[in-house]
Amino acid sequence: MMSYLTIRECYDLLAYGSEIEIDSLEYIQIQGWIRTNRKGKNVGFIELNDGTYFRNAQCVYSSELSNADDIAKYNTGTAVTISGKFKATPDGRQPFEIDVKDVVLEGECGADYPLQKKRHSYEYLRDIAHLRVKTNSFMAVFRVRSVLSMAIHEFFQDQGFVYVHTPIITGNDAEGAGESFNVTTRSDGDYEKDFFGQKASLTVSGQLHAEAFALAFRDVYTFGPTFRAENSNTARHASEFWMVEPEIAFADLEDDMNLIEDMVKYCIEYVLENAPEEMNFFNDRIDNTLLDRLNSLLSSEFKRLSYTDAIEILEKENDRFEYKVHWGVDLQSEHERYLSEEVFKGPVFITDYPKDIKAFYMRLNDDNKTVAACDLLVPQVGELVGGSQREERIDVLDQRMEEMNIPKESLEWYRQLREYGGVKHAGFGIGFERFLMYITAMQNIRDVIPFPRTPRHLDY
Amino acid sequence: MMSYLTIRECYDLLAYGSEIEIDSLEYIQIQGWIRTNRKGKNVGFIELNDGTYFRNAQCVYSSELSNADDIAKYNTGTAVTISGKFKATPDGRQPFEIDVKDVVLEGECGADYPLQKKRHSYEYLRDIAHLRVKTNSFMAVFRVRSVLSMAIHEFFQDQGFVYVHTPIITGNDAEGAGESFNVTTRSDGDYEKDFFGQKASLTVSGQLHAEAFALAFRDVYTFGPTFRAENSNTARHASEFWMVEPEIAFADLEDDMNLIEDMVKYCIEYVLENAPEEMNFFNDRIDNTLLDRLNSLLSSEFKRLSYTDAIEILEKENDRFEYKVHWGVDLQSEHERYLSEEVFKGPVFITDYPKDIKAFYMRLNDDNKTVAACDLLVPQVGELVGGSQREERIDVLDQRMEEMNIPKESLEWYRQLREYGGVKHAGFGIGFERFLMYITAMQNIRDVIPFPRTPRHLDY
Repeated sequence: MMSYLTIRECYDLLAYGSEIEIDSLEYIQIQGWIRTNRKGKNVGFIELNDGTYFRNAQCVYSSELSNADDIAKYNTGTAVTISGKFKATPDGRQPFEIDVKDVVLEGECGADYPLQKKRHSYEYLRDIAHLRVKTNSFMAVFRVRSVLSMAIHEFFQDQGFVYVHTPIITGNDAEGAGESFNVTTRSDGDYEKDFFGQKASLTVSGQLHAEAFALAFRDVYTFGPTFRAENSNTARHASEFWMVEPEIAFADLEDDMNLIEDMVKYCIEYVLENAPEEMNFFNDRIDNTLLDRLNSLLSSEFKRLSYTDAIEILEKENDRFEYKVHWGVDLQSEHERYLSEEVFKGPVFITDYPKDIKAFYMRLNDDNKTVAACDLLVPQVGELVGGSQREERIDVLDQRMEEMNIPKESLEWYRQLREYGGVKHAGFGIGFERFLMYITAMQNIRDVIPFPRTPRHLDY
Repeated sequence: MMSYLTIRECYDLLAYGSEIEIDSLEYIQIQGWIRTNRKGKNVGFIELNDGTYFRNAQCVYSSELSNADDIAKYNTGTAVTISGKFKATPDGRQPFEIDVKDVVLEGECGADYPLQKKRHSYEYLRDIAHLRVKTNSFMAVFRVRSVLSMAIHEFFQDQGFVYVHTPIITGNDAEGAGESFNVTTRSDGDYEKDFFGQKASLTVSGQLHAEAFALAFRDVYTFGPTFRAENSNTARHASEFWMVEPEIAFADLEDDMNLIEDMVKYCIEYVLENAPEEMNFFNDRIDNTLLDRLNSLLSSEFKRLSYTDAIEILEKENDRFEYKVHWGVDLQSEHERYLSEEVFKGPVFITDYPKDIKAFYMRLNDDNKTVAACDLLVPQVGELVGGSQREERIDVLDQRMEEMNIPKESLEWYRQLREYGGVKHAGFGIGFERFLMYITAMQNIRDVIPFPRTPRHLDY
């Protein structure tokens, strides 16, 4: 009897199957792409990967197969169907191998295949984004990307949060999160005649819309793409990236920080559990302190520190910083990393920032100088999460909008949320790619996005 | 002892809790928004909703409370914290009520609140999209939207599919799915000087990119926003909507249709199980054949019929159609609905369409006239899913691209997928909102999108 199996199913069978099940397998058939193919005098070895699992299946074929010479010529990248006997090899390097009876060619691969056996640089691979996913590194990155996405959904849905799709095209120009892209069907900038009859942009945040939903559903979250038209070419910036933006009603900054800490820990634990092969790969190949760092995060409590106290610590070390600090300045990456890497050696929340360096919607503290905001700083990455309690008092909100030159008319609907049963609420945003970089130790945002978009780069 | 509970937790406690647990509750505290508030001579009744559950909590307050007169004045929409005794009322209309000891005002609501007790039309509510989510109808729609999203993720992730975020901004103009929006930072149409150094558009489909991932991971899916700059004002079209696009390698059209059928059934079953209150509401208020229709779909096998056979059936009925059919024409909504509503009285796949009315990437059949495509037609909605096996033969693909005037250079990367281990593969796209409309019986796409975007409408 022939069983059709994925390579994942082969590994699962060995890990969880009974001996009877394994013995009952006569012949199996697997399909996938050849990673390596080397033929000796009597036998040849094909390492086959089918994408369902990080590891390969080792397939051993005899020179006596009628088409052994043809098989030997199959290049790396060739797609084949292999039939053979499944053999558990508990003492081998692999836990099983396939004793090949037949190999059928499914898709040829030219000898000019850009992914050869040698190790390629990430720079080289960026130029073949449609193929790089067939390499170990990118297969690991993009499976973890998928697993982390699911972790986020499970975390929130298990607690009854409602997932809301906030709009991508928006007429709100007032969110103050940097430059945005225009969306148009014209090429003359005549917005009155344009598709929407007004200027339209790509969203920089779904927060304001999520607030409307939180004030009905209590606990909600977004998870979708956001955009920045910033002309910066750094390893941490992309023009298109995904954000998660939860929003919780009847909640203050403390509740917000508790939720952030829970979410970060849940997701890391979920990825460690659901992508162990991939995580070991990152630890081996990218950063061998990675697993230690993540495990220590899981067992520690995130520190909490006011901006004012943070400035006090940093001012003493002004010598080491390019940008000197004093009360009122925004923290730079060097300060954030110093605090999380040197001072606290782990994640730390900085809270209660000066109102002048934060957004209009953050709740003014009683000191009239600071707002109920928090940033979560983590080693290696710096700012991972930004959150705040939102200003629910309509008079204070109006005053803040005036101070920051935000026209009331454009956000009348947002103001109304305060007039009709507005309550204290809070929320945060986490850059999905930053989180993914933190978890995988990958260093460049271009290497954690399937087809990254950056200034003057719009390939594929 | 005071327990803080959500209204969902109150209902869960009654459904699943032990008597001891319930008796041990002395006082509880709940927080939410007043749906109705009516005071008689001795007692008043507040129906409170906190968004965590579709149903309300009935709170009974005595005229003897010190602030009873103030409480009586709280308008619909007001946010309050209510403390009181939890009382199971197995013989009442509600399974429990709260015997109120204290009501604290959390957020006032003006008497001009646009959501009064009376029933409002959907048209009226569309103009207050930031508030309509506080009504029963929209709370039901948007919770089901969230539940259906999760159903999709669970369906695919449980089978090992990899979730891939395909790009939103794209330089591929060649997908042939109608007009697209431009993305720019300029207002003069000078694309060479533009942010990306070339013309950029909002994606109309993630399929081509998903194919690249399927040819590495085997089974993948997208779930993200897509865009059409079509100037059509119908109840079924929006400029921004979400799509799910799975792609499977080593798979043909049969596998594709099996996957579609499994997914549709899984998701419907999931929603019925996880949003029963909401689904009953739709059945009571929107369409009282809804639950019967969905349940009958679950227990039936989807029919499969070739386009050629479908034309034969339709031609006999040409009298009843505005658009007459003959072999070679594309099916209109009237034909699709006739087939699924009148002929098959349920979901039906139409397969093997003429190549000239389908996209270049669909696999040419041996007859050289048709392609291995399938559309799933369902009653009420018409086309719910469109899928196909993809052309994996580079020479045939090239010829089809030439016939359809698609420049090879722009899709060189897509062609290469065939040259380096390309194998047979298939996939489909399902419009998320159409699926949601099918499941909820809502009639207008503007009522299933949180903040809908249509021609000349870009509010909020």
